[in-house]
Amino acid sequence: MSPSQATPLYRAAPLYRAASDRADAAAAVLAQLEGVFGERITKNAHIREQHGRGEGLRDLASPDLVAFPLTTEEVALAVKACAAHGLPIIPFGVGTSLEGHVSAPYGGLTLDLSRMTKILSVNEEDLDCRVEAGVTRLQLNAHLRDKGLFFPIDPGADATLGGMVSTRASGTNAVRYGTMREITLGLTVVTPSGEIVTTGGRARKSSAGYDLTRLYCGAEGTLGVITEVQLRLFGIPETIAAATCQYPDVDSAVRTVIAALQSGIPMARIELADEATLEGFITYSKLTDLEPKATLFLEFHGGPLAVDEQVAQLREISDLNGGGEFRFAQREEDRSRLWKARHDAYYAGMAMNPGMEAMVTDACVPISRLAAAISDCQALARSSGLSAPIVGHVGDGNFHMLVMFDPKDEVARAKAEALAQSVSATAQRHGGTCTGEHGIGLHKLDALVREHGEGVAVMRAVKAALDPQGLMNPGKTIPMS
Amino acid sequence: MSPSQATPLYRAAPLYRAASDRADAAAAVLAQLEGVFGERITKNAHIREQHGRGEGLRDLASPDLVAFPLTTEEVALAVKACAAHGLPIIPFGVGTSLEGHVSAPYGGLTLDLSRMTKILSVNEEDLDCRVEAGVTRLQLNAHLRDKGLFFPIDPGADATLGGMVSTRASGTNAVRYGTMREITLGLTVVTPSGEIVTTGGRARKSSAGYDLTRLYCGAEGTLGVITEVQLRLFGIPETIAAATCQYPDVDSAVRTVIAALQSGIPMARIELADEATLEGFITYSKLTDLEPKATLFLEFHGGPLAVDEQVAQLREISDLNGGGEFRFAQREEDRSRLWKARHDAYYAGMAMNPGMEAMVTDACVPISRLAAAISDCQALARSSGLSAPIVGHVGDGNFHMLVMFDPKDEVARAKAEALAQSVSATAQRHGGTCTGEHGIGLHKLDALVREHGEGVAVMRAVKAALDPQGLMNPGKTIPMS
Repeated sequence: MSPSQATPLYRAAPLYRAASDRADAAAAVLAQLEGVFGERITKNAHIREQHGRGEGLRDLASPDLVAFPLTTEEVALAVKACAAHGLPIIPFGVGTSLEGHVSAPYGGLTLDLSRMTKILSVNEEDLDCRVEAGVTRLQLNAHLRDKGLFFPIDPGADATLGGMVSTRASGTNAVRYGTMREITLGLTVVTPSGEIVTTGGRARKSSAGYDLTRLYCGAEGTLGVITEVQLRLFGIPETIAAATCQYPDVDSAVRTVIAALQSGIPMARIELADEATLEGFITYSKLTDLEPKATLFLEFHGGPLAVDEQVAQLREISDLNGGGEFRFAQREEDRSRLWKARHDAYYAGMAMNPGMEAMVTDACVPISRLAAAISDCQALARSSGLSAPIVGHVGDGNFHMLVMFDPKDEVARAKAEALAQSVSATAQRHGGTCTGEHGIGLHKLDALVREHGEGVAVMRAVKAALDPQGLMNPGKTIPMS
Repeated sequence: MSPSQATPLYRAAPLYRAASDRADAAAAVLAQLEGVFGERITKNAHIREQHGRGEGLRDLASPDLVAFPLTTEEVALAVKACAAHGLPIIPFGVGTSLEGHVSAPYGGLTLDLSRMTKILSVNEEDLDCRVEAGVTRLQLNAHLRDKGLFFPIDPGADATLGGMVSTRASGTNAVRYGTMREITLGLTVVTPSGEIVTTGGRARKSSAGYDLTRLYCGAEGTLGVITEVQLRLFGIPETIAAATCQYPDVDSAVRTVIAALQSGIPMARIELADEATLEGFITYSKLTDLEPKATLFLEFHGGPLAVDEQVAQLREISDLNGGGEFRFAQREEDRSRLWKARHDAYYAGMAMNPGMEAMVTDACVPISRLAAAISDCQALARSSGLSAPIVGHVGDGNFHMLVMFDPKDEVARAKAEALAQSVSATAQRHGGTCTGEHGIGLHKLDALVREHGEGVAVMRAVKAALDPQGLMNPGKTIPMS
């Protein structure tokens, strides 16, 4: 996909007075940083292009430079150089964002933090840890396993913790353990002027001043560069039981979820996949004991008695809503296979639709509106004529539609784009949000305005105050005009 | 206590060019608002004085005017009038703040929201509700009881929900259900220029733009006036078991808490009271089956089997740490009596020390540092010669010391003030925070700077951007110079 094919939804901001200003700024920053970064700063076209897009596929805009800092101090140096020369800064983890967050529509210096992978401390007594922003969730969990601890937030991709903070990520465990918003205790952030700020702390709660941790969490790199993250951890539960249960239709499955939550069953995971997604799971992930029907993927955590009790309670609710039998994944490897299949929904969708690309939507509604919202979105998909399987973290009211389209067909691409936008609007009409966990990026600026109205002016004032030059990841998250 | 006795720790900000400017501004605002507010705006000295202090006792500074708005629109009108004439605005709930948040050191208009008591909606299916800011937590829970739902956040006082959002309040249930930070889904806020902004929404999670809900939560009324609150609710658990357990010393009790949390026992409440506090409970609250020893107050929520399992797990841990037998409060009225005693710790302390006043501290540390932090604080209290019982939401690492002093003895008052400040510093030295749930207000500005360093500059930039005239609750939370 070439840049000219992209559908840029961001607002133009007058960052440069003349085209040559950008090249001059990049050259000046390179000259200033080469001494410190050596080969870790580059203007190699291939590397720049790799950093110009995430998994969102719709956007490709290369930065002018890419640097690979190893420390917070190097990040601060790089930011100061950019601030001095008026060059944009784009923080980059491993590029798994789906909404164009890492694209560089105004050029600039991409700071690739993927070499900042130190796990700085793990406090077993306090169930917390501090990591550099480039640590990924799988790296962290591999490190924790021997200690009997785990980090629960699991977006499908093996994202970096810095990136996950920045998009307020969540995943399948959020219904029980919260999202990055709840689980992030503190941060180290390099501000747009290159100052190093430490937010939050190690105490479980604090009422000391404005909640800067939560301000940076979800700011998508537009207010500063996150370089360290303090996180809550959890003990691996004594008993874990995972199961699937199939339903005659999506509505029956969703009604089961609503009743389970209202009954206060402390589900660890409660995930929905629709008929079309199941076809992918069966074929691509070889879950051959399942039929292509609406399915809940379930997990229960607790003491052995508590888990038995939860299973019995949920089974009763499920039976009332037409659910089939519970198929348990008894061994750990079966459980891993189950959740890998769930996380591979994107790849399964791609495999089932050869030659197609997937535009991944993300919406979240109050639980009571979930069945209606999904039904409306399925109707929209049908009338668009596109294949669009649905999966969802339904315990949170969060669902994704994988809108499949032929990338060579401009009409299909436009239809896919329109359908994705309609999913946002549908969720909002049902009292929900245009994004539960993927963020605004370049694609949902209009949806943000529709959702937050006057609140966007407050966001804009915060952005202007903390980043007066407008250099931090420009064009994303907050429409500036 | 007269204003001259107060120890003002806030920074002077040049809000007025001349003393007469303040009187002129107040007169102009009164003239502008009288037509709308009628008898609901007043300059009556007694009412102004009532509004000039919370329960913190150390501060008394009356506003120039007090108004009792009934709607968000009236709040906006009042704020616009103040903005036009340069008069400060102090939001007021029911005045239970402990850190001088409602004091009016620069005068101004106090907006008493205690008449905005409508419960606007309760969504049983979604486990959420929307209330006006003047609704108190007991009013809300009385309203919810018939629906099988409850709102878990319980600071000792029957505070308003607007006030609780503003101080990021928590209480005994936070270890299980979170604090106001986690439980607030959205807000209606009147900005310092009188615009009405709606933040957040009804979806359980969202990645749409900056987290304004969390920015206003804990801002102590310095960024705007909260007029409506959207809250998460929970189903009343099938089984609730409450118990007390006594220990040879505070350290044994705290070690029990640490082990319980590490084992992942999902405690609903786990509260500590020390020997001195128990004396108050026994005498004042007639908990006569207890001895004056370090005590944990416990509550377990869940299905019947889960609760049995949790109790058995905790009992095992407690036995290993020298805990005595578990005394269960079987009937609901016994349970209420137990928790009422816990919430009355302040009054019990006062009753045990006739003629004394209590300065209530609030600190929070990582769990592993809790025993050491409490021990250090007790040593400080001993060397000050003041009586200072301790209670704590120890599941969060949060503890309070009630520093008792004779209000007629200036030396004792100064010692109490110094001890309270030392508790903040001690918590910070143990990796914690100077306030877990009471906020900064007037008293902890220095502690905030010590805790957040460069972060305070970011907070100040946010404050200056959103409240450029500096009229919203001036002097509190963020030292502006």
